[in-house]
Amino acid sequence: MVNERMYGLGNEPSAIRELFAYGMARKAEIGEENVFDFSIGNPSVPAPAAVKRAALELLEQPAVSLHGYSPASGVPEVRATIAESISRRFGIAASAANIYLTSGAAACLAISISAVTEPGDEVIVISPYFPEYKVWIETARCTCVEVPAHVPDFQLDIDALAAAIGPKTSAIIINSPNNPVGAVYSRENLEALAALLTAKEAELGRELYLISDEPYREIVYDGIEVPYVPCVYPRTLVCYSYSKSLSLPGERIGYVYVSDLMDNAVQVNAAVAGAGRALGYICAPVLFQRVIAACVDEPSDVAAYAANRKLLSEGLAELGYEFVEPQGAFYLWVRALEDDAQAFSNRAKVHELLLVPSDSFGVPSWVRISYCVSPEVIKRSLPAFKALMEEYRG
Amino acid sequence: MVNERMYGLGNEPSAIRELFAYGMARKAEIGEENVFDFSIGNPSVPAPAAVKRAALELLEQPAVSLHGYSPASGVPEVRATIAESISRRFGIAASAANIYLTSGAAACLAISISAVTEPGDEVIVISPYFPEYKVWIETARCTCVEVPAHVPDFQLDIDALAAAIGPKTSAIIINSPNNPVGAVYSRENLEALAALLTAKEAELGRELYLISDEPYREIVYDGIEVPYVPCVYPRTLVCYSYSKSLSLPGERIGYVYVSDLMDNAVQVNAAVAGAGRALGYICAPVLFQRVIAACVDEPSDVAAYAANRKLLSEGLAELGYEFVEPQGAFYLWVRALEDDAQAFSNRAKVHELLLVPSDSFGVPSWVRISYCVSPEVIKRSLPAFKALMEEYRG
Repeated sequence: MVNERMYGLGNEPSAIRELFAYGMARKAEIGEENVFDFSIGNPSVPAPAAVKRAALELLEQPAVSLHGYSPASGVPEVRATIAESISRRFGIAASAANIYLTSGAAACLAISISAVTEPGDEVIVISPYFPEYKVWIETARCTCVEVPAHVPDFQLDIDALAAAIGPKTSAIIINSPNNPVGAVYSRENLEALAALLTAKEAELGRELYLISDEPYREIVYDGIEVPYVPCVYPRTLVCYSYSKSLSLPGERIGYVYVSDLMDNAVQVNAAVAGAGRALGYICAPVLFQRVIAACVDEPSDVAAYAANRKLLSEGLAELGYEFVEPQGAFYLWVRALEDDAQAFSNRAKVHELLLVPSDSFGVPSWVRISYCVSPEVIKRSLPAFKALMEEYRG
Repeated sequence: MVNERMYGLGNEPSAIRELFAYGMARKAEIGEENVFDFSIGNPSVPAPAAVKRAALELLEQPAVSLHGYSPASGVPEVRATIAESISRRFGIAASAANIYLTSGAAACLAISISAVTEPGDEVIVISPYFPEYKVWIETARCTCVEVPAHVPDFQLDIDALAAAIGPKTSAIIINSPNNPVGAVYSRENLEALAALLTAKEAELGRELYLISDEPYREIVYDGIEVPYVPCVYPRTLVCYSYSKSLSLPGERIGYVYVSDLMDNAVQVNAAVAGAGRALGYICAPVLFQRVIAACVDEPSDVAAYAANRKLLSEGLAELGYEFVEPQGAFYLWVRALEDDAQAFSNRAKVHELLLVPSDSFGVPSWVRISYCVSPEVIKRSLPAFKALMEEYRG
């Protein structure tokens, strides 16, 4: 009657989206201030003033060229600006030809996965992982292979990866700073991954692509280093988005950067362009292509998230919750108070606490708290967290 | 090494895009005014003033909610506004639940095709047809079945369709006003199609979906009627875009409307949402979701295209070219002066005339002229058309 897979995907929306939708309805019911919505990574920090300034200025330009189609890969000047920024910031000679603008990180990932795999291949993800990875891997008709992160530091588990990579492996998706745990992979950890992939490429006689999902690159704490992955492992595609760094998640703007150090960058770029075409993308929204070019080196406002992190982690620590101290992104990964994360999330809901159960991320017994909210929400939520803890302690 | 299909798609871009890219390079070389670029449907009429006004006003709103994620189907108020507009204009009680906002008509089509087909199904297109249909049909792992339009009026050929519909047919894609020929399907013609599809549904015992690609709905001449397809055939998905009506092609904004008269609209909506998810769409760009809601009943500026149509068709008629008089859209479908349309297009290129060969649209021996250009381009191109004609006449 309709496509079975699509019907299933549409009818059983992700737990995150479901909770977000529940939160919107609940807020309408009992008042915004009475729902502690930690469900979604919608930045609470407004876009920098430069975004508005750039948009207002651009809107004074002639409308025909301003709103017209761009080439599929993006406005040439915008691609050049991004390439220059990458070159300046990360010490790699990035060329505009290797930048492909997209409608946000989700499009980057769907496109990149489809570009570098053949049906039947395997794509490795590090659990806990963003649940939509699996959806896009299956759109490319590949198998999602879950490799747990190393516990308790949630770095890459190189031995586990070595065991998981086989003759069908095409790509590994990494995400640092990490959603949902907040870990940032160290240089040493990434170099060990690169060494493994290089050895496995030789052993298996096939390309192994590293897809680096980096929307949280700028959101890090205590000055921690976020190594630039294309410099560490050449066969890297960076999936970047301005959703978090410039607080523009609804505008859908990002890019794929194919490392200039990749020996088959020309082929990969063609496949990326082809995958964009195949999936129905014409070009990234043009006004915001130009906006982000104007704001390319605008600093992200991390201070607000750092303050939230402190407030929440101190508050929860005092109440006796166990969690991973985040090095980046704006998520707190908290141990559920019972083994069944969904059941725990349901009980939290009664206290108006919207926490995403870890099952969505491929692991049991944890919840994710998105602390990209106003500090007031965190402060007002602490008594609810207290009541929830007391309920479990009996 | 990379995905073979995606590499092929990326490496052999559509003839339209190729000609467009050539045109951009050529203009930089010999000056904008010396290239007669009829390659692409990039509106030459600026977006109405209301678009700029709406965008400027919206940018004064708080940035966090303005640029935040919307639900996958779109901002609820925007969906409601579009549903009301459809109800008011077309005499169908359209509900917001049946509106799914997308990143333009291409996303509408890729999503709709994937939603209502299973791999192995057949999807019928009417040749000449927009070449990307085939790409999106193949992404859904279906077969593209070409059924020629009725010549010389380029209406739907009901007998040919009857012969083509079989046990694997899932959907028929129609596009009226038509790209590339400019035909508008009459009410009588659409009613005959509806009767055929209804009979075939009963005969084959399966749903037959009509996917109505309507970006040119508002661009029509001489007050011709464009019947609203969901009222004529209930199992219709409308793929609408504001690219042409509001001259916003680069902003990627449109919607899928699942007819309220469809008995399985709930299932189709779920499959549409699922396909959006599977293909990497998170939500349509939010600023322009709100812009189009503010401009939902803004009239399109057809006068400029009507003037171009007159100028070009009179000019070419006088020179002895054969073409189809367009009833809508902004394309002129012109008989090539030799059987090989690509060879004709190549010879036209020497005169700086960029004409898309009809091979891209699935038929031989014609070219498509996009007359959404400045009248100056048309006027200045006529001597080149004359020289081209003389070259063939010897």
